[in-house]
Amino acid sequence: MPSDSPARIALAQVDTCVGDVDGNARLVLEWARRAAEAGADLVVFPEMTITGYPIEDLALRASFRRGAEAALLRTAEALAAEGLGELAVLVGSVGEIAPRPTGEPTQPDDDRADTRHRPTNQAVLLRHGRVETRYDKHHLPNYGVFDEYRIFAPGDDLCVVDVAGARVGVVICEDIWQDGGPVSRMDAADVDLLVVLNGSPYEEGKGHVRTELAARRAAEVDAPVAYVNLVGGQDDLVFDGGSFVVGRDGELLASAPQFVEHLLVWELGGRGPFVPPLEPDEEVYRAIVLGLQGYVRKNGFRSVLLGVSGGIDSALTAAVAADAIGGENVVGVSMPSAYSSEHSKDDAADLAKRIGADYRVQPIGPMVDAFRGELEMEGVTEENLQARVRGVLLMAISNREGHLVIAPGNKSELATGYATIYDAGSIGGFAPLKDVDKSRVWALARWRNDRAADAGEIPPIPESSITKPPSAELRPGQLDQDSLPPYALLDEVLDAYVEHAEGRAELLARGYDAAVVDRVLQLVDRAEWKRRQYPLGPKVTALAFGRDRRLPVTNRWREP
Amino acid sequence: MPSDSPARIALAQVDTCVGDVDGNARLVLEWARRAAEAGADLVVFPEMTITGYPIEDLALRASFRRGAEAALLRTAEALAAEGLGELAVLVGSVGEIAPRPTGEPTQPDDDRADTRHRPTNQAVLLRHGRVETRYDKHHLPNYGVFDEYRIFAPGDDLCVVDVAGARVGVVICEDIWQDGGPVSRMDAADVDLLVVLNGSPYEEGKGHVRTELAARRAAEVDAPVAYVNLVGGQDDLVFDGGSFVVGRDGELLASAPQFVEHLLVWELGGRGPFVPPLEPDEEVYRAIVLGLQGYVRKNGFRSVLLGVSGGIDSALTAAVAADAIGGENVVGVSMPSAYSSEHSKDDAADLAKRIGADYRVQPIGPMVDAFRGELEMEGVTEENLQARVRGVLLMAISNREGHLVIAPGNKSELATGYATIYDAGSIGGFAPLKDVDKSRVWALARWRNDRAADAGEIPPIPESSITKPPSAELRPGQLDQDSLPPYALLDEVLDAYVEHAEGRAELLARGYDAAVVDRVLQLVDRAEWKRRQYPLGPKVTALAFGRDRRLPVTNRWREP
Repeated sequence: MPSDSPARIALAQVDTCVGDVDGNARLVLEWARRAAEAGADLVVFPEMTITGYPIEDLALRASFRRGAEAALLRTAEALAAEGLGELAVLVGSVGEIAPRPTGEPTQPDDDRADTRHRPTNQAVLLRHGRVETRYDKHHLPNYGVFDEYRIFAPGDDLCVVDVAGARVGVVICEDIWQDGGPVSRMDAADVDLLVVLNGSPYEEGKGHVRTELAARRAAEVDAPVAYVNLVGGQDDLVFDGGSFVVGRDGELLASAPQFVEHLLVWELGGRGPFVPPLEPDEEVYRAIVLGLQGYVRKNGFRSVLLGVSGGIDSALTAAVAADAIGGENVVGVSMPSAYSSEHSKDDAADLAKRIGADYRVQPIGPMVDAFRGELEMEGVTEENLQARVRGVLLMAISNREGHLVIAPGNKSELATGYATIYDAGSIGGFAPLKDVDKSRVWALARWRNDRAADAGEIPPIPESSITKPPSAELRPGQLDQDSLPPYALLDEVLDAYVEHAEGRAELLARGYDAAVVDRVLQLVDRAEWKRRQYPLGPKVTALAFGRDRRLPVTNRWREP
Repeated sequence: MPSDSPARIALAQVDTCVGDVDGNARLVLEWARRAAEAGADLVVFPEMTITGYPIEDLALRASFRRGAEAALLRTAEALAAEGLGELAVLVGSVGEIAPRPTGEPTQPDDDRADTRHRPTNQAVLLRHGRVETRYDKHHLPNYGVFDEYRIFAPGDDLCVVDVAGARVGVVICEDIWQDGGPVSRMDAADVDLLVVLNGSPYEEGKGHVRTELAARRAAEVDAPVAYVNLVGGQDDLVFDGGSFVVGRDGELLASAPQFVEHLLVWELGGRGPFVPPLEPDEEVYRAIVLGLQGYVRKNGFRSVLLGVSGGIDSALTAAVAADAIGGENVVGVSMPSAYSSEHSKDDAADLAKRIGADYRVQPIGPMVDAFRGELEMEGVTEENLQARVRGVLLMAISNREGHLVIAPGNKSELATGYATIYDAGSIGGFAPLKDVDKSRVWALARWRNDRAADAGEIPPIPESSITKPPSAELRPGQLDQDSLPPYALLDEVLDAYVEHAEGRAELLARGYDAAVVDRVLQLVDRAEWKRRQYPLGPKVTALAFGRDRRLPVTNRWREP
């Protein structure tokens, strides 16, 4: 390729799968081909392309590291064999073990052969059929959802490669989040472009933070920054893509869409292409869809199963599932009890029809009666029993037919423990609304329906599921609001207490009623064990429950 | 106190509770009194005494840190008010936030007010009614069960205090596990004694590692090392106590028992008292008992509930529960199916009688029939249904009567997924045998019975529960060994694959049959999701499942 034309850079925003080194290597080949067809001199893939990300303690298994390295080398050879040897292909993988710097924590008395030293989080340049250079990530994040300092050793060297006459600096994700990192040493190296391989999980509104940060680094190295991000669902993380290029003056020079695989091709010195950013509700909705879609597909399922009650949570969950894998792959089971209202049953049937789901009705009366005949019970015991009979029914159908059971429980009820453990709302493998509070559940349902109406399609969610007051329908006349503060208020207090770690004193100082605050804090503190039993769900806020909060279960701390 | 007599040191091996700052402060007062009565000049408590340990992300909550600091200051004043102002009291707590060293990972774009800087893991000397000095732990472990690097900032100063004319160096736990730590700088400081505050979780055989390590540090500072360890159950960790003193020549100078609170009083220059070490099976058994006891008590329960099938897992679990909280606080429910054998029912009744448990019989036939009447099913679907009906029964009884449901599932079936998710073996709040493989289950049952026989007591576990071939009894003639390799072989392969991270190649090289290896690896890899749904259980091996292994659920890696 002539080096007198500006270097053409392709950002390959792909959806990898953790552990699937062969599948990920095939992705690299396939997207490198597309990049070559687009005339690219360099194609950059996301962080840890070959291994998938985040690989957690799988990185500590020597056989896995050998497998990833073999796939990497095969990829270099396959690229050359296809005539793509001139294309510079920058991928992420796991590096071989390196001793930790003296004085850093290492595992003492460790008899696991391969953890005395740690692997590295590596970027690898493949060209001419071989590994041309390797770069080890310097900054290993160890907060929130990240455990990298636990599993990797940090690198210390800089990496600048030549691409069509341009000097291209290479760093990985967290390297640009820290001041004083490798980027601060790159000015002297005089780079024409800085590329960043990322595995940056989605959280609401994070796009702006990324572009502003990249703009700061662009100013620091006095060169454009090309940011390529992973896309796809991985357990409770959703990677949203949204790759982009910013100029040395901070101007956005090119951008890729969120939540889909994409090849963004940009020429050094050029501008475009661009995509407009998404509205907040659409962004969150699509994150949830992609999270579920990734979990279903990557775990080898083709269909999902859930209880549909006519309520808003199961309606939104079913709509999300239909958007993720197609309504024909969604099985909705209505499991009315003696206390279920007619309108609930109608709404459930209406929902299923709107999204094209396989709809079944299975009353729980006979099973509840059998339990009631054997065991004396009343009140909450009986309410919970009804709910658990539904859980058993769903698991039996899942056993018989192979669908993944999904749990429609939302973040507000999960936080407060306002749910029956092992019921149809909390059993299964994935809880799409785990990080979506009730207020947002309504907002997303309205957004989804409005969008359908705008497009001249049938809105998926029955209007009465959105407008009626929420109820578990486990006793006559039961309403959520008899047991909980109004959801709008509850969700505000939850956000302050859980997401922002505010204490009782801070909440009272902001004017919240003491009785409400005490009730919410007590519910949240007591619900920790229930939260641990919940299935995975996608993280869409800055702090979801689960991985990014590690709290003791046995804990007597109560806000003073 | 006269400083011409040798300093007398008390090691207060106490059982703290995470979050219970007032209760922990009361413990300090109570044990400081005992130390004063024993003539001690210094009493040393375990790591993070006031807060409990490990506190995980609770350390990031400002209101919690304020609460811990207030309890600490109140304790200093209360000690002086009781006339104990001359006694030097060394406790652990959480230190206030300190900026991280430049270039260390910190949370970027963090809007949680209190996590931009991190707290410290602190030792505090209380004397004369006030805080005399503070020491911040240098080495923050970040492997296995430890996440300290995630939540704390490291200290860099040394701490040497004067106690009755002796110069006493102070460090915390991991500080002595790392070469080149604060201890290596203490030689120059010329200490007469090094004291170490520890929160060192139990794992089998760890006692020797600790004393050998302490002996190395004693040689390094040329002074005795007094090691005080936490005792008690905290979620899935068990702290075993076993505090001790070693001399500068590595000789054991004094030792405390494991698994009980204890005040070990030792005089500088003296020897004794000593306790003999426990036999391996007794050590593991008592770790499990203490783990369950701590979980029940600290979470406010007084009784436990489990299904008793007549099999070995539920029998051992019930015996452990009886030893932990008294047989009169154990409720065992026999839930026979159509396939349950007479001898199973007899064994379950016999077990309950031996341990003095509340025993009930609740056949599952009517409920299973009700489900069968509504839903067509066969094979594994029906087997699992029977198992889940038992789970629902236990949860209903727990709802009604307030017992904690405990799960008798063992590590072998948990690892291989040979269990029904949400059945009576896997639901509940705590799984005492979670980290005990099937071979060890039999060994512990035999040990417990032998010990009873030696003491002239009734062995708790019916002999036939130990000797009969294991079966889930969910279909006629079903035996575990029809679905799994023999347990002795299975447990060996599991240990190598799970605990020692050996790959397929290593296992074949050691002579294991390829078909067995492939079967076991396939089972383990597929069971990851089930393991995530399991309740907490005590960690008794070097690597238990759960907290100390972070593995992706969505993961396509298969051993080549």
